[in-house]
Amino acid sequence: MDLPLKGIIPPLITPLKNVDRLDIPGLERLIEHVLGQGVHGIFLLGSNGEGPSLSYVLRKELIERACLIIDGRVPVLVGISDTSLEGSLEIARTAAKCGADAAVVAPPYYFPLDQEQLVDYYRLLAGKLPLPFFIYNMPGFTKIGMTVETVRMIREAGALGIKDSSGDLFFFYSLIETFKDDPDFALITGTEMFLPDAIFHGGHGAVPGGANIFPGLFVRLYEASLDRDLEEVEKLRKKVMDVYNMLYSVSPHPSAIPVAIKTALAVTGICDDYMAPPLQRMNAAEKDRIAAFLKKTDDLSRLLLDHNA
Amino acid sequence: MDLPLKGIIPPLITPLKNVDRLDIPGLERLIEHVLGQGVHGIFLLGSNGEGPSLSYVLRKELIERACLIIDGRVPVLVGISDTSLEGSLEIARTAAKCGADAAVVAPPYYFPLDQEQLVDYYRLLAGKLPLPFFIYNMPGFTKIGMTVETVRMIREAGALGIKDSSGDLFFFYSLIETFKDDPDFALITGTEMFLPDAIFHGGHGAVPGGANIFPGLFVRLYEASLDRDLEEVEKLRKKVMDVYNMLYSVSPHPSAIPVAIKTALAVTGICDDYMAPPLQRMNAAEKDRIAAFLKKTDDLSRLLLDHNA
Amino acid sequence: MDLPLKGIIPPLITPLKNVDRLDIPGLERLIEHVLGQGVHGIFLLGSNGEGPSLSYVLRKELIERACLIIDGRVPVLVGISDTSLEGSLEIARTAAKCGADAAVVAPPYYFPLDQEQLVDYYRLLAGKLPLPFFIYNMPGFTKIGMTVETVRMIREAGALGIKDSSGDLFFFYSLIETFKDDPDFALITGTEMFLPDAIFHGGHGAVPGGANIFPGLFVRLYEASLDRDLEEVEKLRKKVMDVYNMLYSVSPHPSAIPVAIKTALAVTGICDDYMAPPLQRMNAAEKDRIAAFLKKTDDLSRLLLDHNA
Amino acid sequence: MDLPLKGIIPPLITPLKNVDRLDIPGLERLIEHVLGQGVHGIFLLGSNGEGPSLSYVLRKELIERACLIIDGRVPVLVGISDTSLEGSLEIARTAAKCGADAAVVAPPYYFPLDQEQLVDYYRLLAGKLPLPFFIYNMPGFTKIGMTVETVRMIREAGALGIKDSSGDLFFFYSLIETFKDDPDFALITGTEMFLPDAIFHGGHGAVPGGANIFPGLFVRLYEASLDRDLEEVEKLRKKVMDVYNMLYSVSPHPSAIPVAIKTALAVTGICDDYMAPPLQRMNAAEKDRIAAFLKKTDDLSRLLLDHNA
Repeated sequence: MDLPLKGIIPPLITPLKNVDRLDIPGLERLIEHVLGQGVHGIFLLGSNGEGPSLSYVLRKELIERACLIIDGRVPVLVGISDTSLEGSLEIARTAAKCGADAAVVAPPYYFPLDQEQLVDYYRLLAGKLPLPFFIYNMPGFTKIGMTVETVRMIREAGALGIKDSSGDLFFFYSLIETFKDDPDFALITGTEMFLPDAIFHGGHGAVPGGANIFPGLFVRLYEASLDRDLEEVEKLRKKVMDVYNMLYSVSPHPSAIPVAIKTALAVTGICDDYMAPPLQRMNAAEKDRIAAFLKKTDDLSRLLLDHNA
Repeated sequence: MDLPLKGIIPPLITPLKNVDRLDIPGLERLIEHVLGQGVHGIFLLGSNGEGPSLSYVLRKELIERACLIIDGRVPVLVGISDTSLEGSLEIARTAAKCGADAAVVAPPYYFPLDQEQLVDYYRLLAGKLPLPFFIYNMPGFTKIGMTVETVRMIREAGALGIKDSSGDLFFFYSLIETFKDDPDFALITGTEMFLPDAIFHGGHGAVPGGANIFPGLFVRLYEASLDRDLEEVEKLRKKVMDVYNMLYSVSPHPSAIPVAIKTALAVTGICDDYMAPPLQRMNAAEKDRIAAFLKKTDDLSRLLLDHNA
Repeated sequence: MDLPLKGIIPPLITPLKNVDRLDIPGLERLIEHVLGQGVHGIFLLGSNGEGPSLSYVLRKELIERACLIIDGRVPVLVGISDTSLEGSLEIARTAAKCGADAAVVAPPYYFPLDQEQLVDYYRLLAGKLPLPFFIYNMPGFTKIGMTVETVRMIREAGALGIKDSSGDLFFFYSLIETFKDDPDFALITGTEMFLPDAIFHGGHGAVPGGANIFPGLFVRLYEASLDRDLEEVEKLRKKVMDVYNMLYSVSPHPSAIPVAIKTALAVTGICDDYMAPPLQRMNAAEKDRIAAFLKKTDDLSRLLLDHNA
Repeated sequence: MDLPLKGIIPPLITPLKNVDRLDIPGLERLIEHVLGQGVHGIFLLGSNGEGPSLSYVLRKELIERACLIIDGRVPVLVGISDTSLEGSLEIARTAAKCGADAAVVAPPYYFPLDQEQLVDYYRLLAGKLPLPFFIYNMPGFTKIGMTVETVRMIREAGALGIKDSSGDLFFFYSLIETFKDDPDFALITGTEMFLPDAIFHGGHGAVPGGANIFPGLFVRLYEASLDRDLEEVEKLRKKVMDVYNMLYSVSPHPSAIPVAIKTALAVTGICDDYMAPPLQRMNAAEKDRIAAFLKKTDDLSRLLLDHNA
């Protein structure tokens, strides 16, 4: 894996038939779908991948299968976040064995912690991990945001980069400023809408949930941002905004994004729409709204048709 | 187990030698310590028991060992809270096999959820659990508080009671009002200081972390509250307040209570003070402050000496 | 005014005909209503009194009129909370001139502040106030909660007591513990449901919004709590809980309590139901629900009939 | 005033000699300082202007003096936010009389409100205001954020634009999308660091606190953003970031930004550093750090020297 990690790295949803069964053909189709449209890496078992909702058996099977299918075509990152250190390491060992390139680690999300405890945890983990790691900043789910200083100290403990899903672009800009002389440390935004801003100002890439559905859209937006082609950026950003406003608002529940993504993939025939508890698949009316959006948005659909052809 | 569950049910800390090794003699001493002073039940693998920080192997071993030692002397409740439904069930099956009386279930704590999703989750779980269950309301750790209506619906799905650690006594009073005609549904407070208020107004018991160290103090406070002996209640409450103010404020970090409890038990020779990551054992200076408090508080110490004798 | 301040001190709603006109006959009826049922003090221009929503002209007129009507029968406290120090002092000077006994001061509620800034503010204000003052802890409205240590320091600057509307009974118990050797410092709860608990454990009184409607109910609950008559307390608490559950849940909006109180007073013919912006009077359907509750609750109504007779 | 309002509109700090006295020569120097470097408007009595901390007398005097000094050279906006509707209108009438161009209105910030109450409040106010108005979204201070739909409805009630200080760039982008066919509605960011992003994607301007000190820096950043000159933008953004990181972090207290700005202006001889309570002027050590930063940052200082020359 070249450093820093760059580009569009979809946080792959996990196709499931059931609470303890992968949708393996769906997984194959999904991986070919995103690779076929040029993504630069794949991130397994993040929030969109429902990592924390899956049993260890299922997480390991997903890693094995996905690594086999991807087969080295792009770097593979694996979410190992868990409230149990041993649990994290168990998943990390599987990831290493299967040839994944790096682990992605959010803070343990049960006990409230402070910044010092966070840094200590990452240091402890770093000494035991069988593969390199990225930081995953996701305060909405883990109850703790990171300060720039904390990220700096975890970098010293060996982190290769950070996926920032705080939604706080100011924090991301502060990271860019802090790590400007450390070109191998990857600054990756988890907020789709901030992709161009992140790239303009020195960030390296994005982990956009929507890239499960429209990988090419995000790849082109990334490239246009790199080229500083503001006109093209505006055009593509509007599509990303449409996806956001139309797809992600269909479910009235929190944690609606992974559900909307999986439903859209089901509607387009890529995989099953089963969600691991506590999330739930959409009802018929919601599914229809997703389908209607996909049908209506002609050029977006064409991106999908490319794939289905 | 008689319904409703009543009395003092310590949320047992988990004595550990190491990240993957129980302190078994410590566990034996701790269980005899609390049983010897008259507690009415034992709750394994709650927050104080560091449940979510332990590997499944360790959680299962703890359940087996503790059930063997307790040997039916009091009801045993087992925390099965997990972000993975399958993980929860795995622990629950071990608990059932070992003869535990009930599971205790907090909401899954990774994805933000709403009340409707919560109720659906508990319904789904209730249909699969091999033993009865209690609700565990712990919004500070799970990011979601429960409404009274949600508790009512989970009661309909089969819950035997609720352990409320919200710290919101008003909510607890609303539960008392709501369930006044449902005498088998146990209303248990997780806030030590509210034990007398809870009992005065119709609650059934408490799960006080401090009962790991001073089980007799809480048993006596429970009995004085039942007797509506306000003078005795005041005397004992002051000791509980002392424990709270002196012990729980020693660590400057969040999640300080389980650390203080385990340190106090180590100081009194009951068990090791190893904390599973992400929590950490106290440093020497902090440990000294714990020891000084225990030494100073003469009559509290005597409660301990009773045990050590 | 005897120290410490004790008993039931209704936070008087402000009867209004219009955005800039008092409902003076309503004010007279309301004051006679609460005094006639034995309250121990009156608190003007608190949150229930819509203090911050009123122009200075109106606030001053209210103070003058109310002081004339009360005419020394009970101590009068006046809310002077404002974001402008000069504004606070202007109201305080009117209160002093009209013979009010004390000011009640919440932290200035625009700029986020820390504890140190809070203490400094109270010290500055204390040096300029023409009358004694009470602290008003209302984090839900002011964005800042007070620590026990902060209260201790403001006590040193001269505060006569604290009205705690944090809803955090644990904090209130900590205040009781902290000020146990300072018998003149009044600990007054702003949470109706906690009145008995507050009194049992050493608090001095309550500022219950519901005492605008049912002053006698709260006076009796206070007395039963003083007498430690737990049976009577339970009976009366259930009525308070009814009021809470039925009246305060009628409006679907935040800040529903002052609106429900004023509507109930309008329904019983005591005063107009005009609310100063940004709050709004209830619609007809909501008003009907309030009326239905008041009619149904026979013995509560009788308390009101006492007054209307 | 041309619509939509555009460009750099400093939220002018209010130079004070004392709690009830303006620093009038300071006000003159400050206004000439910002006008001399090309700002496009001036916003009086916002958060940086300490509006809510000042007495009405002082607020009115400030408006009169400032309008006289500005004398129509740029549009003048006046913050009228207050918890009292009458108070807001009183300030608005003064602003209209003095020839100000528009009012700026944050939600009333004492009672918690919901979106419906917000919209109703703005509608009521709009019907009574003697001059046009802008919305001020400042959830960190008012406790309530606005939804896009709320902004849309207040636009219908007559708002000319919104100053968004939520710090949530995603929300700002949603506003841009929502109002793309309403070219007269001004979208103004209150977050300095987001100025280029706001302009690139269709926003109209910024209200940067730092433009009190370095007006020219922000004017040039605005122009470079309009020109889509990404290289120049990066250069200037770094300076803005420096200001942010160095100046605004000097005070350890919340609400540190207005204090840092006023101190910097005092250090450069523009005005007094008195802060209205509850804010406080910096201590000597903090002031020295501000001075050192200003001295060190050579080219920034030159911007100031331009002025002092």
